[in-house]
Order: sequence, then structure tokens, then C-alpha cells
Amino acid sequence: MKLEVLTIGTELLLGYTVDTNAAELGRALAAAGAEVARRATVPDRPDAIRTAVVEALDRTGFVIATGGLGPTRDDLTKTVVADLMKRRLVLDEELLAGIEARFKRMGRPMPAINRTQAEVPEGATVLPNPRGTAPGLWVEDARGRVVVLLPGVPREMRGLLVEQVLPRIVERQGAARRVVSSRTVRTTGVSESALAERVGPIEPDIAPLTLAYLPSVDGVDLRVTAWDLDPTDAEARLAGAVERLVTAVGEHGYGVDDADLAAVVLDALRRGRHRLGVAESCTGGMIAERVTNIPGASDTFIGGVVAYADVIKTAALKVPLETLEAYGAVSEETVRAMAEGAQRLFSADSSIAVTGIAGPGGGTPEKPVGTVWLAARVHTTTRAIKRVLPGDRDDVRRRAAQASLDLLRRLLAEA
Amino acid sequence: MKLEVLTIGTELLLGYTVDTNAAELGRALAAAGAEVARRATVPDRPDAIRTAVVEALDRTGFVIATGGLGPTRDDLTKTVVADLMKRRLVLDEELLAGIEARFKRMGRPMPAINRTQAEVPEGATVLPNPRGTAPGLWVEDARGRVVVLLPGVPREMRGLLVEQVLPRIVERQGAARRVVSSRTVRTTGVSESALAERVGPIEPDIAPLTLAYLPSVDGVDLRVTAWDLDPTDAEARLAGAVERLVTAVGEHGYGVDDADLAAVVLDALRRGRHRLGVAESCTGGMIAERVTNIPGASDTFIGGVVAYADVIKTAALKVPLETLEAYGAVSEETVRAMAEGAQRLFSADSSIAVTGIAGPGGGTPEKPVGTVWLAARVHTTTRAIKRVLPGDRDDVRRRAAQASLDLLRRLLAEA
Repeated sequence: MKLEVLTIGTELLLGYTVDTNAAELGRALAAAGAEVARRATVPDRPDAIRTAVVEALDRTGFVIATGGLGPTRDDLTKTVVADLMKRRLVLDEELLAGIEARFKRMGRPMPAINRTQAEVPEGATVLPNPRGTAPGLWVEDARGRVVVLLPGVPREMRGLLVEQVLPRIVERQGAARRVVSSRTVRTTGVSESALAERVGPIEPDIAPLTLAYLPSVDGVDLRVTAWDLDPTDAEARLAGAVERLVTAVGEHGYGVDDADLAAVVLDALRRGRHRLGVAESCTGGMIAERVTNIPGASDTFIGGVVAYADVIKTAALKVPLETLEAYGAVSEETVRAMAEGAQRLFSADSSIAVTGIAGPGGGTPEKPVGTVWLAARVHTTTRAIKRVLPGDRDDVRRRAAQASLDLLRRLLAEA
Repeated sequence: MKLEVLTIGTELLLGYTVDTNAAELGRALAAAGAEVARRATVPDRPDAIRTAVVEALDRTGFVIATGGLGPTRDDLTKTVVADLMKRRLVLDEELLAGIEARFKRMGRPMPAINRTQAEVPEGATVLPNPRGTAPGLWVEDARGRVVVLLPGVPREMRGLLVEQVLPRIVERQGAARRVVSSRTVRTTGVSESALAERVGPIEPDIAPLTLAYLPSVDGVDLRVTAWDLDPTDAEARLAGAVERLVTAVGEHGYGVDDADLAAVVLDALRRGRHRLGVAESCTGGMIAERVTNIPGASDTFIGGVVAYADVIKTAALKVPLETLEAYGAVSEETVRAMAEGAQRLFSADSSIAVTGIAGPGGGTPEKPVGTVWLAARVHTTTRAIKRVLPGDRDDVRRRAAQASLDLLRRLLAEA
């Protein structure tokens, strides 16, 4: 099954809004068995919308359009599509009652302009939108050609897609359905080439699934993709491939799909009934922020210190002044003392510490920008490593936060 | 001047990559005077690329295509475009030497496949790409129709766009050039409707420029846009509109265009020779992270404490146990004591403190999820406010961080 996606909005063409709907639609539709053959963006102008819908219908017979369903004058999609599908716009009383009730709940009178949102092309299927006032619409003609209209607001688009559109697309394909879907094995603390040495030998076993290496500041993700397979077959093959990959990457893997290293570390700490304290310098609070981003972190995470000025490394973390003077703030001795200091300050049995030079200033020939010392400590064991991280200030900070969480993950795995 | 943008890549259609190039191209081209009439994305298939380029050329005579210029077999754009423009691919010796030199600098032998990157359609203008191996190409036919090919890697695309493409597009338009460009006035701590009361009266003075209200977790941005104006005229009118808007929004405005509130607060602190310490609970390090994200923060920011467990509020920040017990961790009394504690701990003359319930758990009927107490302190003056912030955990944390920085900004402005 092929279709085209049309996103409507002058704001999108001017680059004032990044089209996140397009990527979301692509992923969900491919996994449901529909191939997005082409995607287009046109301005809020009737002629442009009309031409694009007609062309797309001619090519694939199925168009999903987002945007241009709100109550303002820029929102023209519905009128244009009704016209080209030769339907009148008729008032849907049920829809009107729903929109009126929605405004009532918000304690506001309904502006007259919102009444037009209850008009639908005659014979269209109304897709209820509990998250907003504009419903989705599924308009199908006698030849089986379909135009689906969805609102542009991402939260509303996503809800309608999952609850209303995908089930219909799955049903339409029947038993012949073939999907494109992916899963991801996440690694960190290992280079792409070292990973390839481990993973290369099993690539033939994974075929016909394909493998992509996706490096980022968080590490290297391995994405395995099943192409045009029966959904059950795809799922089984993907599960098998993920299992093989997880085994192959070994200790460098920290999770699959949307796994977040901070959540993985929190879980490992929780299993060992540990408590965590953090001491940060160049990462400036990023590690604590990532850990506390996970709901429920408070049962394990006690607190953190951002010891940005050296005086705080001595005052709050009790790093000996002699250590700072003899080895400098960015040194193994200092980061070890910070990890011990965090453990003590937070009465925690485990800790993470980071000190480094994020740039753009502050580098020296011996300690260039990107130099960081990281430490993880559990009970009386400390692991400390030095890294010289590439990229700009933000990259260095993000890589340092990820690497320090990974250091603790590996230390906990050994225990 | 109208043109179309074509982004090429099966990865984009599958939603594995978000098309950030498209938004970047849209903004830059509009500001240079070119209207993006339509944008399309097609898979890495010769027929799909060919059809899309031909159609776009028929409509506007000018296409900018990104992606599909690397050395792998998926990268077909150049071959397809050479064919449809009826050009042979010829080896560009200078380009080849450049690519060979690049590999030499990296200390690696050049793979044979990279040789194809030095092939260009006969008569094309090579746009040098100092950031990668694939150059940009500007192919123009006898009728003045143009296809510009740029690599898909965002950093390389951006460099070529700014250095090579935009100047040619500006030159091509001559004196008749008309641009679409925008500027933004950033506000926070004020509702959209309160803002509209202040700004509404001056909207007629701003015309024909248009005004958009853009609410987000950071506040409400006011974007003013000049449409189809002479570049000098647009710039002057935008500057005038920004000045009027800044006056109208008054104390709620914290900057223009890309202004970051953390940088604005750091500057204000620096001007008053203040030093800052931060005490965070529910924001979990986000405020410190935002402040230290600004290069050079170390001259002003001393440090922060993430007092996630209540015991740290007492131990590190010296919040009296009686205060916590009598009023609770999320209370005016506690946040004031935290602000004083941060000032003392960091020997700083100014501080920010936040305590609240980010959710999803932890809410009560009296203190529902989203309840936060914020404090800012300079010398001996503390301002404390309560907010009940909407949204999910991430929203509440981001709104709380922004609101607390804003509280300090306002306090500093009064001094």
C-alpha cells in the first residue's frame, strides 16, 4: 500500500516551524504497512493545496494531509478537499454539540468562527479528536480514493493517527499487509569501528534485515530494519536480530529502542539498594538533570553539587586544597576526591564526579578543550578515566554526562 | 523569485531522520528574497528523484536539492540530474586532488568509491565544501533553469548555503529583490492575553508587517514579519517594529531574536558585579545547567546544589528542620530558607531557589502536581512566588527553571 503525505502551512515553508509531524507519520505508517511514496509541503493557498492533493491522488490514490483545519481564515484544507472531491460542506450537529461542550468546560463562550469546524464534506467519516476542536476527516470517493485530513497540532495529529487512522489502514490491507519496521540496540563508550568488529560477523545471519550504525553524542545506536515483511514475521525476525546484537555488543550495550542511560543506571542502583550523589563541574548540572528527569528518581537520587568554582570543590566537596594546587582542577586526583566528597556530603554509597574543560576558552596545550576526568564510585571502589571529547561546548558537556553515567553503569555491572 | 526545495532520502520518508535542513533552507531563502513555493521529499530512487526535479523545474525553473551526494550507491542525485539536464559526468581534477588531500590529512587512504565524488556534470559550477568530501553543484541550462545540489549533512549543507548559494541568489535578483524576514521579541512571566492588551494598540502602527504570538514553555514570543519588501526597507521597518514592541511589552520582555534568559540574567549579574549560587529541588539541576551552558559563566556562577532529598535541604542548605516539618518542602518558608542557604553555601550575594512537585506522582489536593515555589535573592532582599504550572513533568521543570531565572531578572532590574 502506497500513499503520500501532504503537510500544509506557509509557516513550514518559511522554516518558522520544524515539520516534526512528517517524521512521526513516516515511522508510524511504515510500521503499519503503508509506504510513504512522497511527502510535500505547500503554503496555505487554495490553488497550491488543490494541485498538490490532485497530483498525489493521481499517483497513489491515498493522501494524508495535516494542517489547515483550525477555525481561522488560513485554514482552507477542508473547503478545498470538499470541492475537489465534489462534496458539499454540511453541518454535523453532533460535532457542533461537542465543540460547544468543550468551550463550556473551559468556561468560555464559543466564538462564532468555531462553528465552521463542525462543517464536514458530505459523506465523510468524522474522526473524533478528544484533544482539540477540529476533528479528523476521512473522505473516500466511489473509486476508493482517500483523502485523510488531520489537524497540524502534533499532539492532536498523533492521537488521531494512532486511534483512528492506523487501525483503518491496517484493516484496509487485510492479510497481504507488509510492513517496514525497526528496532534499535543502544551502545556507548565504544567506537563505531570496534563495534563493527563485533557485529560484522553476525550481519549475514540477520539478513534480509539491514543494519545501520548511527553515531551521536550519546554513543552508537545499531538500527536493524525489516523491509516489506509480514508483520508477525517482521516482529519475530527483529526480536531475533536484537537478541543477537545485544549478545554481540556485550558490555557496551545499555538498552534497546528508547532506552535512556540515566533510567538504566537508576534501575541498576535501585536493584542494589544504592543511593546516588553527584558532583559536577563542567557538566554544570546536566547529570543531575538527566537523572531527575526520570519519574520516581527520588527514591535513589539524593542530590548533587555543581562545584563550578574551585572554592566549592574544597568547601562543599572537601577536595584538599593541596590536591587542587598540585594536580589542578582537571585531574585524576581531583575527580577522585570529588567522588568521595559527593559520597560523604550526600551520605550516599555511590557517586559520580566530573571535571573538565568544555570550552570554548580554558584549554591549554597539556589539557586542551574537551579534556574531562570522570569518576564513578560504589562503596570504596572508584573508577576514574580521562577522555578528550570532540565537538563544541554543548557536545563536550553532553558526551561527558553520558560517559560518566556509563562509567557507573559498568562499575555496577561488575559488582 | 520562486523556487522549490527537494530533500532526498528514504530515511526521511521513513521518519528515521527529522528534516531539519528543510526549515533551515526555508528561513535563509526567504530572508535572501527567494520564496519556497513547495517542498518535497522523495526516496533514494532514480525515477522518483527524476520526476520530482522535472516537475519542480517546470513549475518554478529553480530547484535546490539536498541529499544523495555521498559516495555510496544510494547517492544518485548527481547522476540523475546530469542525465535530465543532458550533461555528461566528467572528472574534475581539482576536486579529485582536494578529496585526496582531505583523506591524506586524516591519515587514511582514499577508498576508490570516493573518486566518483570528483565527477561533475559538464559545465556545472562546483561549490567548494570545506567541511566534507562532496562539493555542492550549481547546474544551469541554456534557458536559465537551475538545479542546485547540496549534501544532506546539516553542517555541510548550512556552510554551502551561506557561503555559496545565498550570495548567488541575492545577485540573481538584482535591485528588484524582495525578502520575507522576521524578528522576535521574547517575553516571559506574562499571559498571552495580558500581552495582547499591551501590544494590540500598536499593531496598526506596525502594518504592513504582521505579528504572531508564539507561546511555549519559555514564555510568549512575538514574531513580527515583513513580507515581500525591499531588503533595506524590511530591515528598517523590522527594527522600528521591534523597538515599539520592546517598549510595549515593558518589563515582561527579556530580549530579542535568539536571546536566552540565562545569558540575559548572567549579563545583568555581571554588570552589578554579583555572584550567583543556585538551590534546586524539582528542577534537578536544570537551572545550573542552563546558566553553565553560557560560555564564560564561570566568572559569575559559583555553584549549585540539587537538594533532591529533604535531608540535603537541611544538611547542605541549612533549611531548619522545623520549617520543613511545619510548612513542608514545597512552601514559601522553605524556598526562602533555600535561597538564603545557597547564598551562604556559595558565599554569593545572589541566589535562586526552586522547590516543587513536577509529577507525575507526589501531588495532593492542596499542592497538586505543578505546584512550585520560586525564590530569588540579592543581598538581603528575597522575592518568593508560587506558581501552579501546567503540562507534564518535563514541562513543569522547564517552566519552573525559566520562571525562577525571570524572578531574578526582575529583582535585578529593580535594584
